[in-house]
Amino acid sequence: MEYSQFFSEDVGSFMRSPVREIFKKVDLASIYSFAGGYPDAATFPIEDIRRISAQVLEKYGAKALQYGATQGVPELREVISRRYGVPVENVQITTSSQQGIDVCTRVFVDPGDVILTTAPTYLGALQSFKSYRTDVRTLEEFASDAAGGHGLQGQPSPVARKVKFCYVIPDFQNPSGETMTLAERQALVALAREHDFLIVEDSPYRELRYSGDPVPTIYSLAPERTLHLGSFSKIFAPGFRLGWILGPVELLDQIYVCKQSLDLCPPILDQYMAAEFMGSGALDANLQKSIALYRAKRDKMLALLDKYMPQGVSWTHPEGGLFLFLTLPEKIDTVALYDRALAAGVAYVAGSFFYPDGSHRNTMRLNFSFLDASRMEAGIRLLAEVIAGT
Amino acid sequence: MEYSQFFSEDVGSFMRSPVREIFKKVDLASIYSFAGGYPDAATFPIEDIRRISAQVLEKYGAKALQYGATQGVPELREVISRRYGVPVENVQITTSSQQGIDVCTRVFVDPGDVILTTAPTYLGALQSFKSYRTDVRTLEEFASDAAGGHGLQGQPSPVARKVKFCYVIPDFQNPSGETMTLAERQALVALAREHDFLIVEDSPYRELRYSGDPVPTIYSLAPERTLHLGSFSKIFAPGFRLGWILGPVELLDQIYVCKQSLDLCPPILDQYMAAEFMGSGALDANLQKSIALYRAKRDKMLALLDKYMPQGVSWTHPEGGLFLFLTLPEKIDTVALYDRALAAGVAYVAGSFFYPDGSHRNTMRLNFSFLDASRMEAGIRLLAEVIAGT
Repeated sequence: MEYSQFFSEDVGSFMRSPVREIFKKVDLASIYSFAGGYPDAATFPIEDIRRISAQVLEKYGAKALQYGATQGVPELREVISRRYGVPVENVQITTSSQQGIDVCTRVFVDPGDVILTTAPTYLGALQSFKSYRTDVRTLEEFASDAAGGHGLQGQPSPVARKVKFCYVIPDFQNPSGETMTLAERQALVALAREHDFLIVEDSPYRELRYSGDPVPTIYSLAPERTLHLGSFSKIFAPGFRLGWILGPVELLDQIYVCKQSLDLCPPILDQYMAAEFMGSGALDANLQKSIALYRAKRDKMLALLDKYMPQGVSWTHPEGGLFLFLTLPEKIDTVALYDRALAAGVAYVAGSFFYPDGSHRNTMRLNFSFLDASRMEAGIRLLAEVIAGT
Repeated sequence: MEYSQFFSEDVGSFMRSPVREIFKKVDLASIYSFAGGYPDAATFPIEDIRRISAQVLEKYGAKALQYGATQGVPELREVISRRYGVPVENVQITTSSQQGIDVCTRVFVDPGDVILTTAPTYLGALQSFKSYRTDVRTLEEFASDAAGGHGLQGQPSPVARKVKFCYVIPDFQNPSGETMTLAERQALVALAREHDFLIVEDSPYRELRYSGDPVPTIYSLAPERTLHLGSFSKIFAPGFRLGWILGPVELLDQIYVCKQSLDLCPPILDQYMAAEFMGSGALDANLQKSIALYRAKRDKMLALLDKYMPQGVSWTHPEGGLFLFLTLPEKIDTVALYDRALAAGVAYVAGSFFYPDGSHRNTMRLNFSFLDASRMEAGIRLLAEVIAGT
């Protein structure tokens, strides 16, 4: 049978995640992997989860197992509302913050519409944006063209198409590890107001700060045009696939209708467990432990890079999150280098995968949350040898 | 701010679920509701879930809380593979079978493409199909035109557009309660092979049979062109939001890539719990109890309709599932009647919502799984009075 005739036009723009393809080929436990965005399993509150699971079944009974509201169960929306100081009607629960990205793309963007992103940016967002055949441009390019008054470069029509939204991860960005300053956030808000586009603020790492002072969210600067995506993956456990969107009710209302046909409602028992975990203070207690662990891992990683990396390699110094970003000498192609690294027993993600245009082939993303200190050292030493051998 | 400028073209075709809108207005506990598709909470295996939750955390530990494979955890795919006699590579786990419907629409259909359905059909499927601006036609219309050689009626072009798939719920259909005979399934397969379209077989109720003999699945008759959607909602608990797709690997592969950007992977702890429940035999034990309970409820409902409904009202006699379908005298409009019924304290869903063209305004869907026997009697008596009063 000829199956290709059945596929929609979108399918031609689907991207396979190179990270997930790596995981299909390689047994993670057999190598030193800096590739994934996995939290350290030591941060998972297994004992809390065991206790809360029993508590929630006791407290809610059948209600924890029945269908629920598309917006999410009220108990979880209320806990999030209180924690972040936002009215309940501005809170929509999502089945993962990846779903938050996807539903925003679905609800706001048509094929050919422009989405702005920083470059590099989160691969899962690029996958979603490209799967809807949108035109992904960099914020830098737009800002520079806007300042010169030339509109977007290379547009098919002389009239620039409407920018629907700008997607950013302002805190401890994936993959760069960098944090936008207040001035940068204010400039983005001013640009969005001037050119009348929305801002999708993806914020899965914000609570994982190891040094420096918090910067106000973009949502707090421009609540009228920002959709703020939160996630339980890094503060509870990724297996729960729960996130939330904070935003204007006029926008959340269409996201709600869309979500009815996506999956009716988020998982109910999981939502009650997340509400109990966040509302009872267990989350904050666990977060303190996670932050201490990850701060030590970040410091260790920076020290190891200093110790082992050859001349000509530089890296970012994140104040939080799970990643840092390496820039190698121009002549080194990290996509080409990948098989050699894997053969040596070490994995990373080539930085060019995070650029909408696939450029910057001399960069790589390293995760510092997953490996323990001794495996981290062995892995960085190996990686430095592979790089030095080029 | 003018928010409407930000929405994609799809948003103009979003349908709000009238069922979910009813639930936002009315406290279900305060009325006799035949409206929802809710399982009886008495069928939820709370004790099994309490036990399995602890077991799974003990057995898998952090693995039950970490990110997992986009196809679903191997343990769940294997249990489904064994139960339904299908190789593991033909099993994709979904975050609800509603997601199964949605991802099939996304992967196979472009705006304007034709999807065939029976009429009436599942509202959540119509919501998804219409949200992608597809052209939903009835199987009956297509079959009759195909037999006469005239193609689809009312097509904008004389060359009929390609039918991408036909969506059916062959067992105890939602909303009609009817089951396709073997001959009807074979005829659909023959039509699909002749005109080269796929079949999406939605099968959430198949294991809930109260009388009569099982009919082979369409997937077993045409595995090369059928996507069979399974669901844990009616055999475990809807709060888990877990389903599966059985189908050809060539088609599942693109569904897998799409699912990466939808939500990365289904909820992990929930998947391990479902695998344990299905694999251990607890599901079959619980299913026997559910079937006995629902058989009694169906019989009760049919007896009550016989006892109370006025002349000129007829209804289907389902062999399983959760619903039956009433046809009232032509002059009665169940959409117009709805507010009077609600004021009297009884809820149903107007049948016309289940027709792609909104026709058949003298029909209604009644659920018989949710209310207990005494409330069911009070509700049917009230409903009969409202109908008799027209």
